[in-house]
Amino acid sequence: MPTGLPFGPDDDKLHEECGVFGVFGHQDSAALTALGLHALQHRGQEAAGIVSFDGKAFHHERHFGVVGDNFTERAVIERLPGDRAIGHVRYSTRGGPMESNIQPLFAGFSGGGFAVAHNGNITNALSLQNELQRRGSIFQSTSDTEVILHLIATSRSGRLVDRIIDALSELEGAWSLVCLSSKKMIGCRDPLGVRPLVLGDLDGSAVLASETCALDIIGARFVRDVEPGEMVIVTPEGIESLRPFDRRRSRFCIFEYVYFSRPDSVVNGRGVYEVRKRIGAELAREAMAPADLVVPVPDSGTPAAIGFAEAAGLPFDLGIIRNHYVGRTFIEPSDAIRHMGVKLKHNANRDILAGKRVVLVDDSIVRGTTSSKIVQMVRDAGATEVHMRIASPPTSHSCFYGVDTPEQSKLIASRLTVAEMEDFIKVDSLRFLTIDGLYRAVGEAHRDSGAPQFCDACFTGDYPTRLVDLENGRSVASEDAGADPVTLLTGAA
Amino acid sequence: MPTGLPFGPDDDKLHEECGVFGVFGHQDSAALTALGLHALQHRGQEAAGIVSFDGKAFHHERHFGVVGDNFTERAVIERLPGDRAIGHVRYSTRGGPMESNIQPLFAGFSGGGFAVAHNGNITNALSLQNELQRRGSIFQSTSDTEVILHLIATSRSGRLVDRIIDALSELEGAWSLVCLSSKKMIGCRDPLGVRPLVLGDLDGSAVLASETCALDIIGARFVRDVEPGEMVIVTPEGIESLRPFDRRRSRFCIFEYVYFSRPDSVVNGRGVYEVRKRIGAELAREAMAPADLVVPVPDSGTPAAIGFAEAAGLPFDLGIIRNHYVGRTFIEPSDAIRHMGVKLKHNANRDILAGKRVVLVDDSIVRGTTSSKIVQMVRDAGATEVHMRIASPPTSHSCFYGVDTPEQSKLIASRLTVAEMEDFIKVDSLRFLTIDGLYRAVGEAHRDSGAPQFCDACFTGDYPTRLVDLENGRSVASEDAGADPVTLLTGAA
Amino acid sequence: MPTGLPFGPDDDKLHEECGVFGVFGHQDSAALTALGLHALQHRGQEAAGIVSFDGKAFHHERHFGVVGDNFTERAVIERLPGDRAIGHVRYSTRGGPMESNIQPLFAGFSGGGFAVAHNGNITNALSLQNELQRRGSIFQSTSDTEVILHLIATSRSGRLVDRIIDALSELEGAWSLVCLSSKKMIGCRDPLGVRPLVLGDLDGSAVLASETCALDIIGARFVRDVEPGEMVIVTPEGIESLRPFDRRRSRFCIFEYVYFSRPDSVVNGRGVYEVRKRIGAELAREAMAPADLVVPVPDSGTPAAIGFAEAAGLPFDLGIIRNHYVGRTFIEPSDAIRHMGVKLKHNANRDILAGKRVVLVDDSIVRGTTSSKIVQMVRDAGATEVHMRIASPPTSHSCFYGVDTPEQSKLIASRLTVAEMEDFIKVDSLRFLTIDGLYRAVGEAHRDSGAPQFCDACFTGDYPTRLVDLENGRSVASEDAGADPVTLLTGAA
Amino acid sequence: MPTGLPFGPDDDKLHEECGVFGVFGHQDSAALTALGLHALQHRGQEAAGIVSFDGKAFHHERHFGVVGDNFTERAVIERLPGDRAIGHVRYSTRGGPMESNIQPLFAGFSGGGFAVAHNGNITNALSLQNELQRRGSIFQSTSDTEVILHLIATSRSGRLVDRIIDALSELEGAWSLVCLSSKKMIGCRDPLGVRPLVLGDLDGSAVLASETCALDIIGARFVRDVEPGEMVIVTPEGIESLRPFDRRRSRFCIFEYVYFSRPDSVVNGRGVYEVRKRIGAELAREAMAPADLVVPVPDSGTPAAIGFAEAAGLPFDLGIIRNHYVGRTFIEPSDAIRHMGVKLKHNANRDILAGKRVVLVDDSIVRGTTSSKIVQMVRDAGATEVHMRIASPPTSHSCFYGVDTPEQSKLIASRLTVAEMEDFIKVDSLRFLTIDGLYRAVGEAHRDSGAPQFCDACFTGDYPTRLVDLENGRSVASEDAGADPVTLLTGAA
Repeated sequence: MPTGLPFGPDDDKLHEECGVFGVFGHQDSAALTALGLHALQHRGQEAAGIVSFDGKAFHHERHFGVVGDNFTERAVIERLPGDRAIGHVRYSTRGGPMESNIQPLFAGFSGGGFAVAHNGNITNALSLQNELQRRGSIFQSTSDTEVILHLIATSRSGRLVDRIIDALSELEGAWSLVCLSSKKMIGCRDPLGVRPLVLGDLDGSAVLASETCALDIIGARFVRDVEPGEMVIVTPEGIESLRPFDRRRSRFCIFEYVYFSRPDSVVNGRGVYEVRKRIGAELAREAMAPADLVVPVPDSGTPAAIGFAEAAGLPFDLGIIRNHYVGRTFIEPSDAIRHMGVKLKHNANRDILAGKRVVLVDDSIVRGTTSSKIVQMVRDAGATEVHMRIASPPTSHSCFYGVDTPEQSKLIASRLTVAEMEDFIKVDSLRFLTIDGLYRAVGEAHRDSGAPQFCDACFTGDYPTRLVDLENGRSVASEDAGADPVTLLTGAA
Repeated sequence: MPTGLPFGPDDDKLHEECGVFGVFGHQDSAALTALGLHALQHRGQEAAGIVSFDGKAFHHERHFGVVGDNFTERAVIERLPGDRAIGHVRYSTRGGPMESNIQPLFAGFSGGGFAVAHNGNITNALSLQNELQRRGSIFQSTSDTEVILHLIATSRSGRLVDRIIDALSELEGAWSLVCLSSKKMIGCRDPLGVRPLVLGDLDGSAVLASETCALDIIGARFVRDVEPGEMVIVTPEGIESLRPFDRRRSRFCIFEYVYFSRPDSVVNGRGVYEVRKRIGAELAREAMAPADLVVPVPDSGTPAAIGFAEAAGLPFDLGIIRNHYVGRTFIEPSDAIRHMGVKLKHNANRDILAGKRVVLVDDSIVRGTTSSKIVQMVRDAGATEVHMRIASPPTSHSCFYGVDTPEQSKLIASRLTVAEMEDFIKVDSLRFLTIDGLYRAVGEAHRDSGAPQFCDACFTGDYPTRLVDLENGRSVASEDAGADPVTLLTGAA
Repeated sequence: MPTGLPFGPDDDKLHEECGVFGVFGHQDSAALTALGLHALQHRGQEAAGIVSFDGKAFHHERHFGVVGDNFTERAVIERLPGDRAIGHVRYSTRGGPMESNIQPLFAGFSGGGFAVAHNGNITNALSLQNELQRRGSIFQSTSDTEVILHLIATSRSGRLVDRIIDALSELEGAWSLVCLSSKKMIGCRDPLGVRPLVLGDLDGSAVLASETCALDIIGARFVRDVEPGEMVIVTPEGIESLRPFDRRRSRFCIFEYVYFSRPDSVVNGRGVYEVRKRIGAELAREAMAPADLVVPVPDSGTPAAIGFAEAAGLPFDLGIIRNHYVGRTFIEPSDAIRHMGVKLKHNANRDILAGKRVVLVDDSIVRGTTSSKIVQMVRDAGATEVHMRIASPPTSHSCFYGVDTPEQSKLIASRLTVAEMEDFIKVDSLRFLTIDGLYRAVGEAHRDSGAPQFCDACFTGDYPTRLVDLENGRSVASEDAGADPVTLLTGAA
Repeated sequence: MPTGLPFGPDDDKLHEECGVFGVFGHQDSAALTALGLHALQHRGQEAAGIVSFDGKAFHHERHFGVVGDNFTERAVIERLPGDRAIGHVRYSTRGGPMESNIQPLFAGFSGGGFAVAHNGNITNALSLQNELQRRGSIFQSTSDTEVILHLIATSRSGRLVDRIIDALSELEGAWSLVCLSSKKMIGCRDPLGVRPLVLGDLDGSAVLASETCALDIIGARFVRDVEPGEMVIVTPEGIESLRPFDRRRSRFCIFEYVYFSRPDSVVNGRGVYEVRKRIGAELAREAMAPADLVVPVPDSGTPAAIGFAEAAGLPFDLGIIRNHYVGRTFIEPSDAIRHMGVKLKHNANRDILAGKRVVLVDDSIVRGTTSSKIVQMVRDAGATEVHMRIASPPTSHSCFYGVDTPEQSKLIASRLTVAEMEDFIKVDSLRFLTIDGLYRAVGEAHRDSGAPQFCDACFTGDYPTRLVDLENGRSVASEDAGADPVTLLTGAA
């Protein structure tokens, strides 16, 4: 069963749903993949899986829980022999967790075995699934990724690479994939490059990973981003690059900078920590507050708070301390205890806050419930004024590209104005970074509203692809969306 | 992980690979199915699974290990709501156990969900799988049963029942199936009726089971055997019977009487215990021995030994005691301990055996290794003569119809004459029942060699169906047989 | 957590609470002890433990569940190094199971470490515990065995053997012990020899065990019984025998022959299977019935049924089949299912029973609830008459010597006459063996009522020792009896 | 089994061995204790335990692993009923972990049950244990805390409180205790007050905890420190304070400020975060460096780094990012991977460090191995100069008061001069805070060398108590120290 997270602030965040990794041509491929996935653990904590190939057979391990609990024993790694392996970490709260959804997914085609690890979301998955089922394909998971396998299996083309291209051409949405066949490791990104994927090198072995921090952990050298619409094919002979799709202006997910990526990663060419500090500086310029002290909501608000404090010339202090020990959700045996919930993860540093006017910096606000608890905690600790500054624009729209977002109606910014949110959260002032401020922080002059340089749909509602399943009246964001009532299977092993 | 069996005598038996069960229209369907599978546990101990349907969704639980360890807690049964459920127990030693092989298998078709539990083996599964893969089907297990799902999924017919008939018409081999769709429970047997399947009634709810002992445990009334080639369709409106296949003379597995079925079951119209006693009596008539005492190799040799003793007018005694406590295979840290292996399950009853001439009755001899250990143990306990009598003819051929048999070359009777076996096992005399004696015990005058009344291929090599995959050079008996080297997937969850 | 047994007949038996084993001077001591305990598993299935000594340190493993599930892996055995080891299997239903009660118990004395495995029960344990606590001893378990450790620890004598003798001299009740110090293995029995203990030899290594079946499994030679009141001291130099206690006429537990011991064991000089057959023969002589068939309630009634059938000249048949697969207790989701309970373990063999007058042979009747369910099952299968014959006298008194007995008021024979029981169980006739018949079966001319040759208190109420705690108003049979309300500790690890 | 920590920096820290907590008179006592222990998790991650009392019986749960994994389910909390409970978290690496060492320890005295949770270490535990064993006490754990239970059990005094005072009067060393009897909760600190203990109030219920952060998590109000040598007795009638021991000048552990306590706690009257910032400021004054940037080794170096940066007027940046996901120790299948170890927890933030002169601030250096790996990582990321500043004096002596310290010879500062360490760690400069600087940071003018205001033995070797066991030639710091070779027991359950 999955290890839950304690109730608390992080449950009020958007969550990246996946991280992917692969290494080709290294004797320790499975151990390296476990390390790479450990470095990508912030992208998904529900489950992890690894598939390796040893020249004769594919080997598969998949487990609920974090990498550090399930892929560290020698016996597990020894069940994954071979000089090539790919892996996946997954986050999901909706729908019952099913083991058959843990990636990499695997299929035995007539031409051989094939495994795929997917970061992103296919926005026409249900439409494709319905068509495939009508033609006789059997679905074993409720994952949109399985559509890709069936499209490859039913392609009329001959060579595997052509079959993959056929399949990907059918997809709408976001997909950064790492695939493993008996002969090749393949990395590819959708034409808009919504989700990240980087190529690295470890002493001559090719590495693919969602972020550079997964290269760092194994000492691999960063080579370059896999480009939007590019397909990188790794074989013992070397690396080949194809560009089978029409070129389009890239629309990288700007929220990777705001929250998803690790601060020590370089994504899409920019250092995440630096971008976050610049976001804080922009925020100070746009929305200064009369205060004695800048305090981050740790850990996600910390780099922006440092940037804000520097730009504002205010002291930076850890006025809130985070307890990093986690575990399953604590029970709440009585109302008395239910009301203490927020302190499981965060505690106010009374000595620092008492009698102070505080600028509180957080990366984003989703439902708003956690923010109001944090503000209350800071006030209880004696702060005289609390000015909340958010390192992104209001999150007003759901994401359909591989991020776990609540329904739009649950997003506080879709229902309330900033002034109303200020009341709800009970702060002395609340300000969000502007969308242009965010674009400046990532290095653009401003947002090009005719052809935005990034995917910023969660702030603007400007979705860069068709949302086919949604248009067809089905919620593609739901894990179980593909399931006709009578075909739904739940289960545990 | 699977619970192994201790090393010892039973590892030197043929093993039925499956038992199936289903109940339709009872509020306790999953709990009843767990009980039914518990009664069928002797047909497969590696893993068990249940699928239920509650009018909206299918629910699935599958676990390695015995029913009594995995399907007894309230929480498990509550995860299987609904008034209809089917289940399966499975035995397998070959190939790594894979969770995706635990039945019932489930598929979401375009028309709805569908689960199948299969007892038997499809002898053209690989040929069909290759063809299906070429047309784009993806296989997720290494079970021959999955072929059935894909054939249904890709059938061009409209109604589910027609699609199932299309699928089954493609199959060679043995199959007793219990299936569950959102509207129906379906039971069917192959045209030869190789494996058993019975229909029962529990206060108006239809029940399907491999043996009548699974009806008894829940107090259900035995109605009749599902007939060879029959398809029984259970709906809330009642039970319909179809006979979509050509009629052929039935060839029920005669080994069900020798060893597989429980002695308290009535299979194919005959009480198993009575048949076994008659086998013992035939054996006494055919192969009397000068002895003081008849001793069974428990538990499988016991009914025949009682029959032998009665017919021979000799005392019957429990000269060998069986320890029924089991668990995982015991380690063997040194050669000294390795040589004690056999006593884990069986111990000689010294007081009874010392100074006696003993007739030792066992049901069959597979590899012969256990028999020689048992004989040695009986001699060590002081028996002056040991005359071994086997309640079946020599097992000289592999089974391809859902029984776990060693390769033919491992069957001692395929390599040695009875006289040579006598030497190998080191008995004073060794005799097997004749094939006609066996037919007499089950109620026939003799074996009709032109059109045998039963499947007795393990004794005669006379296989009642084509062995398509075997003819194509592939061992259909192997669990992994379908696996091209590059598509083989092993794994654990 | 402990693995329960299914509800069913065996829950209506008396249960031996323990089996003990030890081996000294063999490189595979822990593995041999695991095998020995496996052979003694019928004496206790709740938990098992082993302590070994490797010349430097003692090592300890204890686990809930059967030996075959917990002591079979190489890693477990490797955590128990050394050439000497002792072990214990335990049965208990009363009080919450506590890990600290799993034996062998261990204590670090000033003179070194000491482990003890105990079969029996100390009838003045609470009185001793109260006195020891008053003097400052701290109790960590609710086991009466812990008293022995504290008495040794607080003895004023110098040498360990003298301290043990001091301690044992304080005890009332029954105790067969196997102990391990850093220098010695010690076996001893109380002066009455209530519980069994045998000495064996494995290629020069001394072995101690509750029954000979535990010698057989490892191929050890039976040497002799440890005698009542004897203390056997095993060192590398050899075996020394002490008789530190006053000689008294032995009072071996006669119920070991009726039910507790394994039929292939020789206890107190008599083969158990043979005694049981003679019991059946006595029963036939004393209480013949007009019948077609003798049917045992398996497995415990089987040898007596064979003896009955032989003596009566009636056919013996397996009219009831036992399912040996067990597991945790099955849930009972509804009343409908609750009423099927009994068939989890036993099923009637309809073909054999229909239309027959049946003699049903069981070893004993405790509460009577199971007997009535079995009789009903036999009638439902078509038996025209059911004559129940019990291979022991009515069990009318509780045991205080290491047997799990219900309170006396729950024993059906303490409340009802045989005629009333006949009504309750709904049999055509019910007869018990007489006490003299039982004595004859074990080889005595009759019971010497002035100085009985055996402990038969469960049948006669004639307890061979003082029941000190009971006289003091405390139920010594209760596991938690030592616990003052405010000292009771429950817990789980 | 215990959940290990990944190899990495934290394995090169001193570790507080325990945290204690108790609450009296609250219906949710066990749930509150679980929360309190979660807040104290940094004081011990190996195991946790809770004992509650419900007016009739004590209840006990103890588990290896963190609180969040073992004490969050309703079923666990429901097994701990009652309005009073105490708990303990434990850290230990030496000796095999034994369940019997998990606190609170419990004993049934003649007067009733008694549980104790201990933070600290008894420096004459072995001498006391030897004496107690000679008098007949049996030890069941290898914990020094068990001595306290036996001293209470064997006290000649009558009332429990007097017996406790008798017992504590025998002890040398450090002990902050939380105890639970059937009538009282008792908190006490040794006369020197080496380890912390605070008293809080939750709506009228008394709370005891190692640190104030455990009050904050449940919303309890901080009342005051339990004073050195004080005994606080909580009953339903209220709180009584005794001072049974001679008054001595307190010697609170100064390392609690350096590393052990959580930054949001107030210990011994001073806010930990503020002290750490002042330490950083003192360090900047004492040991400024020519640099562009101040970077903490997270998380323990962060507050001092903020203080350093402020005092030095240099920018503060997160040049090293910590991965907070942990799990069991990762395997290291090859040398190649072994050399990557350090990045499991820490990664350099390349963008920030490249081309910069860096001041690296850490709280202390123990073995020095991690520091050299971190420095190398910072240099690999492009830093041109690395100046290491340590927020405490050189750690040159072992602690015997409840801290897990390596043997003195493993402490780099006991073997090398600062100049030699500079070479070993390969930094451009290395400076430690002076002992007077540390005293200034905690608010003293300077260290009073005649009568030091704190225990600073790890820096100065000036131990405030006798080290009786050490003087007797036994290593009291060792968990197994009490164990004579022949009494040592290892085991697992």
